[in-house]
Amino acid sequence: MARINENYQKLRAGYLFPEIGRRVRGFQEKHPDAHVIRLGIGDVTLPLAPAVVEALHAAADEMGTPEGFRGYGPEAGAEDFLLDAIRERDFAARGVALERDEIFVSDGSKQDSGNIQEIFGLDCSIAVTDPVYPVYVDTNVMAGRTGDADGDGRYGGIRYLPATADNGFMPGPPAEGIEIAYLCSPNNPTGAVASKENLAEWVAWARANGAVLIFDAAYDAFIQDPALPRSIYEIEGAKECDIEMRSFSKRAGFTGVRCAYTVVPKALMGSTRSGEPVSLNALWARRHATKFNGVPYVIQRAAAATFSPAGRKQCGEQVAYYMANAAHIREGLGKAGFTCFGGEHAPYVWVQTPDGQTSWDCFDRILEGAHVVCTPGSGFGAAGEGYVRISAFNSRENVEEATRRVIAL
Amino acid sequence: MARINENYQKLRAGYLFPEIGRRVRGFQEKHPDAHVIRLGIGDVTLPLAPAVVEALHAAADEMGTPEGFRGYGPEAGAEDFLLDAIRERDFAARGVALERDEIFVSDGSKQDSGNIQEIFGLDCSIAVTDPVYPVYVDTNVMAGRTGDADGDGRYGGIRYLPATADNGFMPGPPAEGIEIAYLCSPNNPTGAVASKENLAEWVAWARANGAVLIFDAAYDAFIQDPALPRSIYEIEGAKECDIEMRSFSKRAGFTGVRCAYTVVPKALMGSTRSGEPVSLNALWARRHATKFNGVPYVIQRAAAATFSPAGRKQCGEQVAYYMANAAHIREGLGKAGFTCFGGEHAPYVWVQTPDGQTSWDCFDRILEGAHVVCTPGSGFGAAGEGYVRISAFNSRENVEEATRRVIAL
Repeated sequence: MARINENYQKLRAGYLFPEIGRRVRGFQEKHPDAHVIRLGIGDVTLPLAPAVVEALHAAADEMGTPEGFRGYGPEAGAEDFLLDAIRERDFAARGVALERDEIFVSDGSKQDSGNIQEIFGLDCSIAVTDPVYPVYVDTNVMAGRTGDADGDGRYGGIRYLPATADNGFMPGPPAEGIEIAYLCSPNNPTGAVASKENLAEWVAWARANGAVLIFDAAYDAFIQDPALPRSIYEIEGAKECDIEMRSFSKRAGFTGVRCAYTVVPKALMGSTRSGEPVSLNALWARRHATKFNGVPYVIQRAAAATFSPAGRKQCGEQVAYYMANAAHIREGLGKAGFTCFGGEHAPYVWVQTPDGQTSWDCFDRILEGAHVVCTPGSGFGAAGEGYVRISAFNSRENVEEATRRVIAL
Repeated sequence: MARINENYQKLRAGYLFPEIGRRVRGFQEKHPDAHVIRLGIGDVTLPLAPAVVEALHAAADEMGTPEGFRGYGPEAGAEDFLLDAIRERDFAARGVALERDEIFVSDGSKQDSGNIQEIFGLDCSIAVTDPVYPVYVDTNVMAGRTGDADGDGRYGGIRYLPATADNGFMPGPPAEGIEIAYLCSPNNPTGAVASKENLAEWVAWARANGAVLIFDAAYDAFIQDPALPRSIYEIEGAKECDIEMRSFSKRAGFTGVRCAYTVVPKALMGSTRSGEPVSLNALWARRHATKFNGVPYVIQRAAAATFSPAGRKQCGEQVAYYMANAAHIREGLGKAGFTCFGGEHAPYVWVQTPDGQTSWDCFDRILEGAHVVCTPGSGFGAAGEGYVRISAFNSRENVEEATRRVIAL
């Protein structure tokens, strides 16, 4: 029989969210009348902004006419109207100049953060913060860049940087010997946010070590303090060492619409084993051209609409709505004696489990006692043990009810 | 500096279509007034069917309401309404029973045919027909499953099965020692179609050798003879050895809409090095869950609409329109003395270059002399040398004009 990629067998049982799904379905089968409130998966709940719906309609009509129809998109996959809106609103507005062909539009940051490792050598050394968005790790495991998992779920060959209350859940860079590091701010799952000083330390490290920092800014829109950096490229020198990912999923409610992008600056180089420098932009462009065919035209129009004056206002109101939810959770649980982190510049509240419970025990207790779904912190890594993540993505009513129920436990 | 994936450096200059694009742009810069007719890239030109546009509108409206809004899709990425339409119309109608979780909906067959190799061992032996859709080969090169390319562009470690006039451009399976083979019917680029006997021979080979056949049926809708197989699963025993890919790109004009699917039957097993059988369906499901987040809801609705009575009628008319174009090209060039193949059950005509010209010479001559873009056969592999592919995807008027111009060369 054809031999399989045995690296898949190193993966621990199930991707985190499928496992949560299984437990919730099990609970619901036993309690079909329970009103379960889901604050687990970070999935938006508000309907698409009117400006986005309008753009979808207009683009659908275009596609139905001989003049307006579009087949395959441009080689690199995105239309200039979207690239230029991104350049203008996400970067130029923050003092960062990017060229069109430094921006690669895709169908999701999950995909981008999973695929980016393909352009690096299989023996590259990797560092991640812990807890961590599982996709960074799992995709490196699947590629064969790691050993087996230990009892804590840590894979051999990956350097884990614990994010703890002591370091404000924003660990500094590793000492040495690392070629690629993943950093997410605002952080999923801890809700922590990197300051300019934090990012400057990472950029300085990457430059000094010739490393590449993969910066995941999927939650940038939730940053409330305008002085905090939204892009790694606000840090001097970052274009020579950083790849950045952004998504429309959370900022514009696109989890079911699918659009994101990755920036690979042309100044960013990797090297061959023999030391010859190679453009990572060129490698990623090649991957994109060979394994991807662009985001649907109607979706690109929808994404561009989020940058229009109406789109910005409407999406901004959605973000504000979720952030008020986050404040409610954080303050409510805080007053009830829970120790809470995050939720100030991110839609996630990172809650310490009471009485030294494990994350999964706390998950089960909240599910069974309060009929509320959260996410066990240990599912994001060993250093997440003793925490659960509560998401602010739900209706105000559900968030208030869920907070009441958890407090009453 | 971070070490790159040096396998990318084995790839020959540029993916085929970007190279064509560069040559055409070069021509147009020199001849800005020339009316260039593009019969190169297999990209549809007719506007979306009204049933599809209607479905996009309805889904956009749904997404704009609190009740109708959808975030992340189901775990495996597709909605039941689409899975059931596929099961019913593409399979049950041809006597093939599939379960929902054997069908994985994606954003393109290019992606699927590029990604599928990830679930197999890096030392698996690969066979492809020659000429071949470049993505099958390039993605294996990028993964490190090959050696360097030779002067003909053939990569060490890949078994090439020449498709020639002698075997009707439908080569039989390799003798032995191959674990994974790719087969495309109706074929891109040759336009040849596999008979039931051809496919039965491949299935028998795969079963006898414990190999996996990756069957790309992206052009199934162009098969005119109802007796010809549309799915590999019409062949007894195929579920134990075959993966099948289908796309909405060509059958419904979705090249700019993006929807496809891959079938991985649950009966299909690979094995570990030590001989333990492993479900390929489970591996692909794991890949899907980890590296993909589903096709946009509005696009899934659009795809489902192609199966409605109105959608089937309208998409069928589009296919008939392109097939009339193919007949025009084939007959026109044939009468003028060109030797033509394909174009009877596929939207591609495979034309022998006159006077022993190379494919690229013929490409340049047709571009410069007739202002028509075709695709050089050698771009698809060494055995494509001496042919060009002419696509039927264009307006009748352009196809007639292009045919006249090529004949007049």
